[in-house]
Amino acid sequence: MTAARSDFVVVYPGSFDPVTNGHLDIIRRAASQFPRLIVAVVANPSKSPMFSLEQRVAMLREACEGLANVKVDSFAGLLVDYIHAVGDGLILKGLRIVSDFEHEFSMALLNRRLKNGVDTIFMPSSPEYAYVSSSSVKEVFSLGGDISNFVPPAVERHMRARR
Amino acid sequence: MTAARSDFVVVYPGSFDPVTNGHLDIIRRAASQFPRLIVAVVANPSKSPMFSLEQRVAMLREACEGLANVKVDSFAGLLVDYIHAVGDGLILKGLRIVSDFEHEFSMALLNRRLKNGVDTIFMPSSPEYAYVSSSSVKEVFSLGGDISNFVPPAVERHMRARR
Amino acid sequence: MTAARSDFVVVYPGSFDPVTNGHLDIIRRAASQFPRLIVAVVANPSKSPMFSLEQRVAMLREACEGLANVKVDSFAGLLVDYIHAVGDGLILKGLRIVSDFEHEFSMALLNRRLKNGVDTIFMPSSPEYAYVSSSSVKEVFSLGGDISNFVPPAVERHMRARR
Amino acid sequence: MTAARSDFVVVYPGSFDPVTNGHLDIIRRAASQFPRLIVAVVANPSKSPMFSLEQRVAMLREACEGLANVKVDSFAGLLVDYIHAVGDGLILKGLRIVSDFEHEFSMALLNRRLKNGVDTIFMPSSPEYAYVSSSSVKEVFSLGGDISNFVPPAVERHMRARR
Amino acid sequence: MTAARSDFVVVYPGSFDPVTNGHLDIIRRAASQFPRLIVAVVANPSKSPMFSLEQRVAMLREACEGLANVKVDSFAGLLVDYIHAVGDGLILKGLRIVSDFEHEFSMALLNRRLKNGVDTIFMPSSPEYAYVSSSSVKEVFSLGGDISNFVPPAVERHMRARR
Amino acid sequence: MTAARSDFVVVYPGSFDPVTNGHLDIIRRAASQFPRLIVAVVANPSKSPMFSLEQRVAMLREACEGLANVKVDSFAGLLVDYIHAVGDGLILKGLRIVSDFEHEFSMALLNRRLKNGVDTIFMPSSPEYAYVSSSSVKEVFSLGGDISNFVPPAVERHMRARR
Repeated sequence: MTAARSDFVVVYPGSFDPVTNGHLDIIRRAASQFPRLIVAVVANPSKSPMFSLEQRVAMLREACEGLANVKVDSFAGLLVDYIHAVGDGLILKGLRIVSDFEHEFSMALLNRRLKNGVDTIFMPSSPEYAYVSSSSVKEVFSLGGDISNFVPPAVERHMRARR
Repeated sequence: MTAARSDFVVVYPGSFDPVTNGHLDIIRRAASQFPRLIVAVVANPSKSPMFSLEQRVAMLREACEGLANVKVDSFAGLLVDYIHAVGDGLILKGLRIVSDFEHEFSMALLNRRLKNGVDTIFMPSSPEYAYVSSSSVKEVFSLGGDISNFVPPAVERHMRARR
Repeated sequence: MTAARSDFVVVYPGSFDPVTNGHLDIIRRAASQFPRLIVAVVANPSKSPMFSLEQRVAMLREACEGLANVKVDSFAGLLVDYIHAVGDGLILKGLRIVSDFEHEFSMALLNRRLKNGVDTIFMPSSPEYAYVSSSSVKEVFSLGGDISNFVPPAVERHMRARR
Repeated sequence: MTAARSDFVVVYPGSFDPVTNGHLDIIRRAASQFPRLIVAVVANPSKSPMFSLEQRVAMLREACEGLANVKVDSFAGLLVDYIHAVGDGLILKGLRIVSDFEHEFSMALLNRRLKNGVDTIFMPSSPEYAYVSSSSVKEVFSLGGDISNFVPPAVERHMRARR
Repeated sequence: MTAARSDFVVVYPGSFDPVTNGHLDIIRRAASQFPRLIVAVVANPSKSPMFSLEQRVAMLREACEGLANVKVDSFAGLLVDYIHAVGDGLILKGLRIVSDFEHEFSMALLNRRLKNGVDTIFMPSSPEYAYVSSSSVKEVFSLGGDISNFVPPAVERHMRARR
Repeated sequence: MTAARSDFVVVYPGSFDPVTNGHLDIIRRAASQFPRLIVAVVANPSKSPMFSLEQRVAMLREACEGLANVKVDSFAGLLVDYIHAVGDGLILKGLRIVSDFEHEFSMALLNRRLKNGVDTIFMPSSPEYAYVSSSSVKEVFSLGGDISNFVPPAVERHMRARR
């Protein structure tokens, strides 16, 4: 167990394929609480992504503009190795529903076992975003629906460009 | 939404009737991550407590000895008013199981609505404490069972003194 | 199994101790869909209520004013007997969270077994009311908090009158 | 919010790949309550179906024979656009288990956000069908098991014809 | 960890206040699988019971007549001490719903920690009894409903005698 | 319903792709309780396995060495047919989390319906293995992480040999 630190970093990892308003809600709330927040894009998510790593990072950077203590980064390999490399931060995950909770709970315990001292905190998603996920956004878009309520303008622009 | 702060306080509220090894696990892990942690005992919990407020605070103080950045305090009234009074901190709750999650999720949203900017984070309990709660400790004790694996020595001593 | 009916009644039962904005959201949405809606107040809920049956009915009537196809009523005894008496309607329940679902699911199956043909439908609560319940409103009020975001004006007036 | 309507349509959407006795239980119960029910087959479900759209519709039509107020239809594109096209009906979904509930709950909220006024109601599956799903039927069949307790005769005939 | 045993006892504990057809379903299924089954009535359940210990045991004995390998017994104190006294058996619990599961899961882990080697197995309730519980039976009865589908004849007779 | 048997077999089925310390925990606990335990490897799991059937069986045999009443076997086709062939045993499944429970619950009911008298019991996983699954082990391994805490030595050796 590490000693208490007067400065520390919080890492918010994810695929962000693409970033949604639900992700941004977590980012803004965390940025208003914690001194430093790194949004860390997983280079190779388990499912093949719609957007390239470069596109996912670019859309996040545009969406996070103006949040001075937020840095957008990416990583490959194990999350716990990345956490260690950036200074043994806390992992932050957003929770929408009970099923999220179970999976994230298991991942949190697994990560603590993989690297001693790496811990995870959860933040509940705001109710108005509880039903917004990257996959539902992609499904609505693929069926011709309007996604402007669910994603930041940068993402909508990128998605339209792919039609 | 408040601006990002370089220093902030995390508040871990509860009845602590009595404090268990599960609570202590959360306290120790949080104390190793956050610069300042306040453990805040609810003066008048909804269920009538086994121990007085003074006893609950005293047992916590004894159990938290040696954790330099942890302060044990108590409060009456709304949690959000207490949070505001100590400097608009983050609420920290431990999560053991899915049912916990649902109740705590609702409370987190209610508290954000009661006072804008008051947010809650969750920390998963360690698996070895997932089945330990204040009420199960009290039930085992009332049936004559051995509680030394579930509570700190100060609590066991206090509980034996009540027989 | 009854034959298909061209007219039917939907019954929304509950303790309504007191009615909240979450209840009203369900009532308004149901009233906009179904030809006839009866809001049925349980005379003697299992927990001793804060408000008398007359007060609970009166607050509901004031809150439902202007909804032409909504009738506020009350009943004692088994819900299925009441349902039968008003013309074999459908039971409507609002669902906020997973735990609600489990309890309501069991009640729906029990009611179908108690009286053949009595069925239940569920409507998801709007996300902005997912954390509002009669008991949380009463707890916030008892601790001196502001409940004006959670209940209709008639209820806030009645509750202030009790201080 | 639309005004209360004296006549309205309920739409029960799904892949029905193939229709099971669990689906038929919902259809029969809904048909005995609501004046008009449309069973709406999704043309292109996210997973590639075992049966063509024509086959899925034909099996449903055979299974629903004799239910005078039930119409079997199909649609492509967004469900909310189809709902709007048939007269702003209510979406009906069957719920078997908690996980169903979470997914369906999110979809219901998403659909309300996609088209204002489109609402969803849920009906609990009968306990004797709680474990029957299209995918479990297909798995049992592929392993040589007897599916006659789980699907209507039309489906069993079609599935045997594929061996 | 004890060595494998060629003979062992399974203990099904509960309040049985009163025994329901759901309990009997578990007892019959377990009795058809395990060589020896003890149904163990908790003498002093946490909630004050409707029936005395003697009545609860008598109703169970009448209901279990004809099941040669089932013995009805009662115990006070910790379950793990009783389990040890009857030969280090397995604890058997019926599971109806997800919430049951969480509570029972915690109790199983607690019991293993209280006495090394005491383990618990779960059996899913049959779907037709998933909504039957002692408390729902008592509530339906208190409202004048017919409980003959939910309890064995001995229980109905005893309950009528209390009117 | 079969008559009570003085001897019976418990069957623990799974893909075991590969066997983890969580599986071994269930196997050891079951072997210490039941007279005979068969660990039954599914020949063709729905997802294409990482290891061949022969490899999965060999790793299990090595891990179960020394457990005299445990036999490792494999089967193709329906589980209930295999259960019948080995003497109408009980199916044993380990439960880690709520989602497991729901899926396993449905499978248990389906199996009882497929072959009358085939029943399933569940054993809760030990908390220290609650987050260990075959798929998480494979993911950690594929990202270069250390899996020695999660699998028996035989598995780690086999996995390294595949790099």
